[in-house]
Amino acid sequence: MAAVDWGTTRLRVWLVDEAGNVLAERRGDDGLITAQAAGFSTILEGHLAAMGAPEAMPVIVCGMAGSRQGWLEAPYVTVPAPIGAILAGAARVPGQRRDIRIVPGLAQRQADAPDVMRGEETQLAGAGLPAKGRHLVCMPGTHSKWVLVEDSAVTGFGTWPTGELFSVLAAHSILRHSLGEQPQPVASGNPFFQRWCEQALAEGGDVTSRLFSIRAAGLLQDLKPGDAAACLSGLLIGGEIASASRRYGKGGSVVLVASGALSTLYTEALGLAGLAVRAVDADEAVRAGLIEAARKNGMIAGSGVAA
Amino acid sequence: MAAVDWGTTRLRVWLVDEAGNVLAERRGDDGLITAQAAGFSTILEGHLAAMGAPEAMPVIVCGMAGSRQGWLEAPYVTVPAPIGAILAGAARVPGQRRDIRIVPGLAQRQADAPDVMRGEETQLAGAGLPAKGRHLVCMPGTHSKWVLVEDSAVTGFGTWPTGELFSVLAAHSILRHSLGEQPQPVASGNPFFQRWCEQALAEGGDVTSRLFSIRAAGLLQDLKPGDAAACLSGLLIGGEIASASRRYGKGGSVVLVASGALSTLYTEALGLAGLAVRAVDADEAVRAGLIEAARKNGMIAGSGVAA
Repeated sequence: MAAVDWGTTRLRVWLVDEAGNVLAERRGDDGLITAQAAGFSTILEGHLAAMGAPEAMPVIVCGMAGSRQGWLEAPYVTVPAPIGAILAGAARVPGQRRDIRIVPGLAQRQADAPDVMRGEETQLAGAGLPAKGRHLVCMPGTHSKWVLVEDSAVTGFGTWPTGELFSVLAAHSILRHSLGEQPQPVASGNPFFQRWCEQALAEGGDVTSRLFSIRAAGLLQDLKPGDAAACLSGLLIGGEIASASRRYGKGGSVVLVASGALSTLYTEALGLAGLAVRAVDADEAVRAGLIEAARKNGMIAGSGVAA
Repeated sequence: MAAVDWGTTRLRVWLVDEAGNVLAERRGDDGLITAQAAGFSTILEGHLAAMGAPEAMPVIVCGMAGSRQGWLEAPYVTVPAPIGAILAGAARVPGQRRDIRIVPGLAQRQADAPDVMRGEETQLAGAGLPAKGRHLVCMPGTHSKWVLVEDSAVTGFGTWPTGELFSVLAAHSILRHSLGEQPQPVASGNPFFQRWCEQALAEGGDVTSRLFSIRAAGLLQDLKPGDAAACLSGLLIGGEIASASRRYGKGGSVVLVASGALSTLYTEALGLAGLAVRAVDADEAVRAGLIEAARKNGMIAGSGVAA
């Protein structure tokens, strides 16, 4: 089968066998935005042909391709919901020769805390959480998600737009003068990252009071652009963790689903917050979640049939 | 004398008599950015000529014209500092036929809370604060300032970039889809403004956890663009007040130095926070502060001579 993570700006395709072994992988910049113009089927079939996938191979998809602006709307599942039931509700794309299904997103319909996700529910399903118990999962990114899972059901989640705040403030606010033209990625162990993260952790998610301090530190304390980027990153990530800890409880442990530099920074920040971290690779998690979704929908052999 | 409030993008000039009566007023878009190219003297003399100001008339200036990128750097005064001494330290612009002086800005050089202001110190001086006692002053705007004044001395201040966050998020973040092309000003008494402000006030300045909820409320609850703008405004203003209250203490009273729609919104939000508000018009305050600065520098008759 083919497994596809189809986001707003990017797409990844894996060919996997029934045991879940990866046979081939492709990445492209033809996410939702490109596909809206070029056609979802055209783009997918192009990738599959390039990978030598047979015509009858089934395809399971997650991410923004399932949004209202996507290929086919896979309507949100309302939480609380068992993870297995979410996966089993994949929507079949009509009029295709192949069996192509899209995993639905999640909606939290509380009047005072509305929220949505699309794509992360599949990462979550592949994160290898124990079937029993309460698990807090952090999935950092442009729009970081924190998810509370209890006995294999999603009972609540929230979004912190940390990555987006960083890039929007770096490019468009007065902090652009402090961070310089092209902020470099923050290196692990950066003392500015640590100090600003610790300050933010101590302030319960209140980050707006310190944003302008980065500018002032440039004027009064000769803070350099690279260090200013580390300050902003520490402030926003520390603020996210403090805020999520207010909502979901302090202490305990967190399952971190992330890759690369982001995984390193969040591991460091969660450690500063006194949380025990179990790190799961985000790429592996989404692939495992897609395979599980294919099983649950009866597309490949295994435990599941659509619930 | 002429009194000039010379900011980054705008400039205002008043001709006043020795009693402080306004004889003439002019406003221009030739702030710091324009003046850097066209020349500060050229722009000022152009406005003064158009107002019929005599050649020998002295000029007192506050704002970004006194920054390093301005006409002449009027070095920051470090807090704590008596307001009178700040005003008395105006820097004289050399090589001019007129006596032209620029009021210095303020710097807070605490290692963990660096901050600067330029222009607001003059508003503060003209806000009519009682000489004795502790007064908390809120000056909302692009970069809102909260200032603690004790027995006529500035003992501390902070910056919340509330106005800038609103415009940057409205224009460049995912919230632009929620707020629409041209967010309208939020009307007084808007129930969305009130509800989101109250929520933010209850969360101690943590606003990042609710930003994405505005987007989700559009998807799940059919929130309209004008109401989404009210939500964002309420969230950010409520967050600013909650955060400042954490730093300077809850309850009590606040002197609000603001004009127009901003004054109305902040009066409403400060009321929701349970704070008693004394409102001072920002235009009148800066003018009164400039006249006081001219007196303190011996440019016009009155109580002051340079300290």
